[in-house]
Amino acid sequence: MTDYRRLRVALLGAGAVGSQVAGLLRKHGDELADRAGAALDLVGIAVRNPDAPRDVDLPRELFTTDSEQLIVGADIVIELMGGIEPARTDILLALNSGADVVTANKALLATHGPEIFDAADQVGASVYYEAAAAGAIPIIRPLRDSLAGDRVQRIMGIVNGTTNYILDRMDREGSDFADVLADAQALGYAEADPTADVEGYDAAQKAALLASLAFHTAVPLDAVHREGITQIDAQMMDAARHAGYVIKLLAVCERLTGPGVDSPTGEAISVRVYPALIPREHPLASVHGANNAVFVQAEAAGNLMFYGAGAGGVQTASAVLGDVVSAARRHIAGGVGVGESTRANLPVLPIGRVTTRYQITLEVTDTPGVLATVAGILSDGRVSIATVEQTVLRNANGEPGTARLVIGTHTALEQDLSETVDRLAASGVVGRVESVLRVEGD
Amino acid sequence: MTDYRRLRVALLGAGAVGSQVAGLLRKHGDELADRAGAALDLVGIAVRNPDAPRDVDLPRELFTTDSEQLIVGADIVIELMGGIEPARTDILLALNSGADVVTANKALLATHGPEIFDAADQVGASVYYEAAAAGAIPIIRPLRDSLAGDRVQRIMGIVNGTTNYILDRMDREGSDFADVLADAQALGYAEADPTADVEGYDAAQKAALLASLAFHTAVPLDAVHREGITQIDAQMMDAARHAGYVIKLLAVCERLTGPGVDSPTGEAISVRVYPALIPREHPLASVHGANNAVFVQAEAAGNLMFYGAGAGGVQTASAVLGDVVSAARRHIAGGVGVGESTRANLPVLPIGRVTTRYQITLEVTDTPGVLATVAGILSDGRVSIATVEQTVLRNANGEPGTARLVIGTHTALEQDLSETVDRLAASGVVGRVESVLRVEGD
Repeated sequence: MTDYRRLRVALLGAGAVGSQVAGLLRKHGDELADRAGAALDLVGIAVRNPDAPRDVDLPRELFTTDSEQLIVGADIVIELMGGIEPARTDILLALNSGADVVTANKALLATHGPEIFDAADQVGASVYYEAAAAGAIPIIRPLRDSLAGDRVQRIMGIVNGTTNYILDRMDREGSDFADVLADAQALGYAEADPTADVEGYDAAQKAALLASLAFHTAVPLDAVHREGITQIDAQMMDAARHAGYVIKLLAVCERLTGPGVDSPTGEAISVRVYPALIPREHPLASVHGANNAVFVQAEAAGNLMFYGAGAGGVQTASAVLGDVVSAARRHIAGGVGVGESTRANLPVLPIGRVTTRYQITLEVTDTPGVLATVAGILSDGRVSIATVEQTVLRNANGEPGTARLVIGTHTALEQDLSETVDRLAASGVVGRVESVLRVEGD
Repeated sequence: MTDYRRLRVALLGAGAVGSQVAGLLRKHGDELADRAGAALDLVGIAVRNPDAPRDVDLPRELFTTDSEQLIVGADIVIELMGGIEPARTDILLALNSGADVVTANKALLATHGPEIFDAADQVGASVYYEAAAAGAIPIIRPLRDSLAGDRVQRIMGIVNGTTNYILDRMDREGSDFADVLADAQALGYAEADPTADVEGYDAAQKAALLASLAFHTAVPLDAVHREGITQIDAQMMDAARHAGYVIKLLAVCERLTGPGVDSPTGEAISVRVYPALIPREHPLASVHGANNAVFVQAEAAGNLMFYGAGAGGVQTASAVLGDVVSAARRHIAGGVGVGESTRANLPVLPIGRVTTRYQITLEVTDTPGVLATVAGILSDGRVSIATVEQTVLRNANGEPGTARLVIGTHTALEQDLSETVDRLAASGVVGRVESVLRVEGD
């Protein structure tokens, strides 16, 4: 083997991803050295409990509880603990000690990204985080580098495997949310506390990262509009299928222009996570199971899609190790790290000022003039109707009593739509607003 | 605008891609400067004829016929002339003058890559070529960086838009190759001389680049096995559809291990371009029109797919400009360029030593014992039968005379298969070998 310069690699955390990273680093060390042009010496793994069982068999002497001692003196620090603290403190220590940092910590980057990137800039180090969004799918580098000369118009991503698994099974089996969730938990596709996934928190963190890269703007997590999938039921799934749609939890990052946008440059962005109807023929509709996919529309490049495994220990380890090799190459090449590009600094609009299409499902009294009343309320609210489908619903005695109206709208302002739905609910003719869903990808 | 360091950008060539690059550089200059951290001054465009009509309106004073003067003194040289010379000489001059180079020239890199990468290493410069494979689709960085810590097992790419357009229309319309080609030429999807596309030369160049990156091995173009699509006819398309397949021109880059591989490491690679049958449910089967897609299987990451426009002036310009921003960032950051990773140096096996599955279609005499004879020849040739379908063919009088045998094989060695097909053709019972196609993606 070539006599390479040796780099000291410190690993923080040895969970599902960390233990795989350590295992692969040791297994493929010679090969990775050839690729990096530097030997990658795993000098230690900081964990809370060195004796805890691991997914991968690793020498006991690598483990330590003293992360500080491990970090100081390392050339590359891999942070895979997750959570805010002590990850934040450890990463700042690593950067200030002259190390490059590799992390998969989307929660930390979505909340403390600017602090961490600033610290890296101060010392000329780099922070790599390919594994922080969409697992093994290379999406950070394409947005950060490959599309750096283009103008991204829109990203639509399926970036949470758990919710895609649940929605996909609901779609295929006609099952209800609670049943599929319970089964997903039993099978390990969903956690015991599924809140972060099913309420869209995980997807919102990834949306903030993707939007920051795509629009060269530091997008704070609290600017991301977030809705989860717990309200989606079998009837909504069935109605979607009937209308040629499928329901997916989407992270939508969009560049907005036009008269409603009063920013200095005439441009703004919207970043939002919600369940939406997408046409069955859209490429994202065929993303099944726990897979992820990110659909990107750019001014020059046109439509691009990136598809693959969005989670999993060894899959995510692939992305982490790609970053480790990149960090090693930079170390050898010299020069300072390339900082984040956030100088576009576009305002993030609140959800009320976003326009999309909607599908509104109402239960109404089955009497003459109802449709005219509903249409009048929509028109007064500046919501234009594209399609209406009316079905008579029968009561327990099999007699017609109420009707279901499924209304597809043209593009409308979210605030107008929301106020209009309130007025529909309060009108005498609407018994129940069954669902209001955005339509994306048309 | 921030007072950035100014970088001198020289453009060589102003065809479909070059004129778009120049136009976008000028149009989005301020924005690109913010992203790069450096002003990108387009200082000149070297062309053969400054007065030729261009796709984009550009100031006459930018044009020059003196490429040498333009190159010397540039910080970044964008080569978009195509072809081997003078592109090779100009790129070497640029590198030796201290410039970083951005190129989309797959023909040059596939034939003179090592010379160019060595020259870059000598002076510590970088060569960027995201636009050289699969147009606007970011595939070079994912393979070079994101997957640098993984082991790629296999790439299957639809990397030529013209042939995918032709095969897709043949599949949808039941038309013959020559008719669709003529129409594609009339519509601008195929060139007047379509040889580079339909004979697979273009795809072979891209396959050499992708395999070099994926397997960390300099793959010479002449090690790529190449077959085109001119033999594909409406009947083959129809038979493929009937059997649940679609025919695509694939670039296959594969890591091989096992008893047949006698390399020092026990590993080798195969790089090949040919029309193949892929199952209709494979993600590559739904790549329509002139689009490209690259399907990657890696040890840790699992299955990934990258999809988008594979050609087009403005689409390819997106990839070029991403490289220009990357080159500018590196210039500002300092340090030397990261060279190509080719130290794995795996042997490339000839096509005869590759194993795949096959579908063999034979016209045979419709007499008792024919199937036994055919099966015996296959068995003697170490080709194992998976499926057989026999159809009686009727002659002009509507009488049965001959039969068609469609044989699906298990995995077989190409050399065994090829010799077996020769023996079938020479046997008394086979009237004609209608087609032999590989099956991929099963």
